[in-house]
Amino acid sequence: MKALVYHGPGQKAFEDKPQPVIQAPTDAIVRILKTTICGTDLHILKGDVPEVTDGRILGHEGVGVIAETGSNVSNFKKGDHVLISCITACGKCEYCRKSMYSHCENGGWILGHLIDGTQAEYVRIPFADTSLHHIPAGADEEALVMLSDILPTGYECGVLNGKVAPGSTVAIVGAGPVGLAALLTADFYSPSKIIMIDLDENRLQVARQFGATDTINSEKEAVVERLMAITGNRGVDTAIEAVGIPATFELCESIIAPGGCIANVGVHGKPVTLHLQDLWAKNITITTRLVDTVTTPLLLNTVVSKKLDPKQLITHRFELQDILKAYETFSHAEQEKSLKVILSND
Amino acid sequence: MKALVYHGPGQKAFEDKPQPVIQAPTDAIVRILKTTICGTDLHILKGDVPEVTDGRILGHEGVGVIAETGSNVSNFKKGDHVLISCITACGKCEYCRKSMYSHCENGGWILGHLIDGTQAEYVRIPFADTSLHHIPAGADEEALVMLSDILPTGYECGVLNGKVAPGSTVAIVGAGPVGLAALLTADFYSPSKIIMIDLDENRLQVARQFGATDTINSEKEAVVERLMAITGNRGVDTAIEAVGIPATFELCESIIAPGGCIANVGVHGKPVTLHLQDLWAKNITITTRLVDTVTTPLLLNTVVSKKLDPKQLITHRFELQDILKAYETFSHAEQEKSLKVILSND
Repeated sequence: MKALVYHGPGQKAFEDKPQPVIQAPTDAIVRILKTTICGTDLHILKGDVPEVTDGRILGHEGVGVIAETGSNVSNFKKGDHVLISCITACGKCEYCRKSMYSHCENGGWILGHLIDGTQAEYVRIPFADTSLHHIPAGADEEALVMLSDILPTGYECGVLNGKVAPGSTVAIVGAGPVGLAALLTADFYSPSKIIMIDLDENRLQVARQFGATDTINSEKEAVVERLMAITGNRGVDTAIEAVGIPATFELCESIIAPGGCIANVGVHGKPVTLHLQDLWAKNITITTRLVDTVTTPLLLNTVVSKKLDPKQLITHRFELQDILKAYETFSHAEQEKSLKVILSND
Repeated sequence: MKALVYHGPGQKAFEDKPQPVIQAPTDAIVRILKTTICGTDLHILKGDVPEVTDGRILGHEGVGVIAETGSNVSNFKKGDHVLISCITACGKCEYCRKSMYSHCENGGWILGHLIDGTQAEYVRIPFADTSLHHIPAGADEEALVMLSDILPTGYECGVLNGKVAPGSTVAIVGAGPVGLAALLTADFYSPSKIIMIDLDENRLQVARQFGATDTINSEKEAVVERLMAITGNRGVDTAIEAVGIPATFELCESIIAPGGCIANVGVHGKPVTLHLQDLWAKNITITTRLVDTVTTPLLLNTVVSKKLDPKQLITHRFELQDILKAYETFSHAEQEKSLKVILSND
């Protein structure tokens, strides 16, 4: 089969790889119908994730159809259409038994990381019963690819951890796909303000279309002053960090209201300075989280009931065989005006 | 009247001051019966709290008897015995109306800070109806002085923010009065382990008497290794920081289990390094808080029902007129084996 293979920092190829086979009775083999590229894949390609080794097939998002199941798989059978979760959960370890699937002792984020991923014609999914979801009848499968990772990530790590509530004020720092996913799901809770902060004017315009009440271009405006003016000098109840660099995290520290929550979503490679001399008495909460994908079934319901339209996040479409071109488009987000790209292998 | 007066960094005197008078109809004048000294008073005396100005009477803890009330005070009358809360709450501002009294726009922590405090024969208490508590019949008034500040601080900022739960594991860094108050109130929730960390062997012995299951002397032992051995290499579900320096906060970052809470209690004067490169995916929560004293009525109940014995925290007793000697004893905690000192003005 064909697959997008990592060959060390800066090196990738779309090339032939053996089709995956059942290795454990809890495995399923899924034929990929749709997949996508994540910002994390770009990090891997930069060499930022050294546990990804030469020869690894990338990708941790997708929908597909079950091609084969191991003898212990009971929730799924050949021919079922499934959503692949970016998090693999054994369902049995200490962490799985408290719904912290991201820390599964036998899984967690392994797809396209420690085992071969979804940017291929086929993928092996371990612990299929607890790592796949049935696709609801009549659902738009392309849209559901957004539920493999970015929507539960924005929702769980940003909106739920950030305690977005009716009437509250929310700032989202970073209007990339995950920041926009946080925006779409923050809207479930009817906050009074959602202030989107980014330096890409196109993404801010998308944010306004998606329901941001205010946008701040951090390249052109004094962010803290603008935000304080918008919030009556209070700061925000929730600040969602969706970039992953020290400057944006420290911005969240500067704009959080007393009693507020800073919900970190960004993947950080460096320490940040926590200004405890200002924050110790401010009654704030800071959270970190790798998505657990515990909300995926509920998010599927919101798509079916049309409370959530994930398709809005898709800007470009390619055949799987054109994945190198798709990487180009996705990695030049500002000039290509790209958010998420869909790769089809129907 | 006599009072302990701050005269700039390093300078204090026990001297004559005019007796306070009613300034607003919501004020009460309280004759002090018992008061104490807080670590914060030592910070002020070092010059760390520059908004405290020359001439200020220190102290924010105590019990007393109402000497006079303003015309709008309705919950209290002359002769009532009262517990003074370290937090003054107007009861009417935005923050008070959501029980965040620490951020009261007209009060908060002002006693012995922005207005004259309790280390005196009399004190003026603004917003008396919402800043004092009736002393339950038969209660030991000396013990209740511990409920002005340190018990609600240890409980709210440490135990509640840290989500201590039955069967969970707790580490408390710093076995001073507030750390020990956190220990006593953590015990309400039946955690499986309470690990106390300090460098003062006497305080660790007190901690064991108070119910710590394990103690680690950070001067003599490798803290992280010992703690990981105690917790089966998991780390703790709750880490309570009760010191207020970067090293102890960063220790908490090193010992927190996935899914755990770091509850900051310490008063910090400097930024700390937050190792987000390790913590971003660890599903942890960090909280800060200035005590709101919302739990004081419930803590009073626990004292009456003998679930809590705050008297254990008192090691030394003095007459108010010997307050300078009391400061000496309190500030040389290791050699004097002092925790809290009581000053009497009966």
